[in-house]
Amino acid sequence: MNKILAYLKASVGKEVLSSPSPLINGLNAKVLRVEEGHLEFSYVVTEEMTNPLKILHGGTTAAIIDEIVGATVFTLDKSHVYTTVNLAVDYFSKAGIGETIIAIGTIIKAGDKIINAQCEVWNEDRSRMIARGYSNLMKSAYENN
Amino acid sequence: MNKILAYLKASVGKEVLSSPSPLINGLNAKVLRVEEGHLEFSYVVTEEMTNPLKILHGGTTAAIIDEIVGATVFTLDKSHVYTTVNLAVDYFSKAGIGETIIAIGTIIKAGDKIINAQCEVWNEDRSRMIARGYSNLMKSAYENN
Amino acid sequence: MNKILAYLKASVGKEVLSSPSPLINGLNAKVLRVEEGHLEFSYVVTEEMTNPLKILHGGTTAAIIDEIVGATVFTLDKSHVYTTVNLAVDYFSKAGIGETIIAIGTIIKAGDKIINAQCEVWNEDRSRMIARGYSNLMKSAYENN
Amino acid sequence: MNKILAYLKASVGKEVLSSPSPLINGLNAKVLRVEEGHLEFSYVVTEEMTNPLKILHGGTTAAIIDEIVGATVFTLDKSHVYTTVNLAVDYFSKAGIGETIIAIGTIIKAGDKIINAQCEVWNEDRSRMIARGYSNLMKSAYENN
Repeated sequence: MNKILAYLKASVGKEVLSSPSPLINGLNAKVLRVEEGHLEFSYVVTEEMTNPLKILHGGTTAAIIDEIVGATVFTLDKSHVYTTVNLAVDYFSKAGIGETIIAIGTIIKAGDKIINAQCEVWNEDRSRMIARGYSNLMKSAYENN
Repeated sequence: MNKILAYLKASVGKEVLSSPSPLINGLNAKVLRVEEGHLEFSYVVTEEMTNPLKILHGGTTAAIIDEIVGATVFTLDKSHVYTTVNLAVDYFSKAGIGETIIAIGTIIKAGDKIINAQCEVWNEDRSRMIARGYSNLMKSAYENN
Repeated sequence: MNKILAYLKASVGKEVLSSPSPLINGLNAKVLRVEEGHLEFSYVVTEEMTNPLKILHGGTTAAIIDEIVGATVFTLDKSHVYTTVNLAVDYFSKAGIGETIIAIGTIIKAGDKIINAQCEVWNEDRSRMIARGYSNLMKSAYENN
Repeated sequence: MNKILAYLKASVGKEVLSSPSPLINGLNAKVLRVEEGHLEFSYVVTEEMTNPLKILHGGTTAAIIDEIVGATVFTLDKSHVYTTVNLAVDYFSKAGIGETIIAIGTIIKAGDKIINAQCEVWNEDRSRMIARGYSNLMKSAYENN
């Protein structure tokens, strides 16, 4: 089991306060479920995460999806670095301040060079999908371009 | 001139500290240029905006793009509310802590019901594109679904 | 049951030679399964459907996905006309001349104004996903813009 | 100058009847302009390219965009094979049978491993954009996965 997967498994049921990803530390994340290639996190929507209409900002949703997609890929393989080629998000519904939302990351296709992963965002009882995103990540050593 | 456009024009050269969008207040945004259908903002990358590799988080980039796309649409028309249908982001290059990045929002097609807008993110001297995103927004009164 | 759904159900097991969509008539489509909100078609890859490398052209794949997404939406509702807002396709693997491929259309979210649908393309025994696409369609009477 | 670029330059003003891409031969393509990293083709919409409403099928549009994106990348570099990672298309307007449409391919970012290109589709006098697509292609020797 790789270190990221072990760390995440040990975090189930806990709030994420010291993620290696600084972005995530401000998002009130809680780890719900961790399997190889499958992650579930919950978040409580705060005012900082909203738009002028006081509902979950599409940019926050995109950031959560990007974070969960990346973390889900890292549960598969920690021997490579992945760079995100693209991220696509479809928005379906809204969430208000105080609402708990669930982000579910899964692997769609683990190819030789490209991994495709998706993240669905649901309301707390999983009766209403708020958004769904999908991303291609390229296996690579990290280098400038 | 609509109120959003007037507010943004009055903000040129200033830092955005009290945006109606709470998400943006944490992003060190500065308004560079404002025209109807065209916006340019700069940001200084802080550690909170980075990923575990200490470079600009793809989720932060997506959030900035979503914010700028939305603001650019509002410079056109403040008589309707727009909801984002989808956002697509292509990632090209990276940015480090302390680096200034420029986000440039433009309108691609203002249709009757759908507005398509894009946002490019560049390094400070605009010699290197970091990411580009495009989004469809639907004209609508805001309502639950 | 709407007319499109009835027509498609009556076509299960048959080749599609006189589709109302002229594009589809050249694609050797065969209807495998039809449910409300779920379609499965098969195609045999011909040289006309390939690229210079003699493998399934990404443009053909995109055309099949767009066609199946549209047909899947029409199994839900024939009282409205839908216009496609956007289509995103992720490519995973290839298919050669003579190979049978399966396209599976499903509805992800049927909103009030927007329907989001996806189409997966698999090899014949469904062991290898070739591509996956997702699309937003807007409910509307058809009109010029 | 690479062979593809030379072939395309020699084709300016001509119909494309014997493209190495079989898909393109059925599309009435005519080469309008060829530069390194920039292509313009025109097409006349035929019934075979339409949907049941007798307007240009979104799938045909996607196929044209994918073809032009690929050809534009090949004007840059013929020493590598590129595989398409993803294609995203935004649809803005429609085109009827007999109408001439223009597809314009450009390179957005030529990275070390990934090239990002776009294709806009316009009506004949370029007053109305019909669709715009963008695609990421990965430099690679061609191999099974």
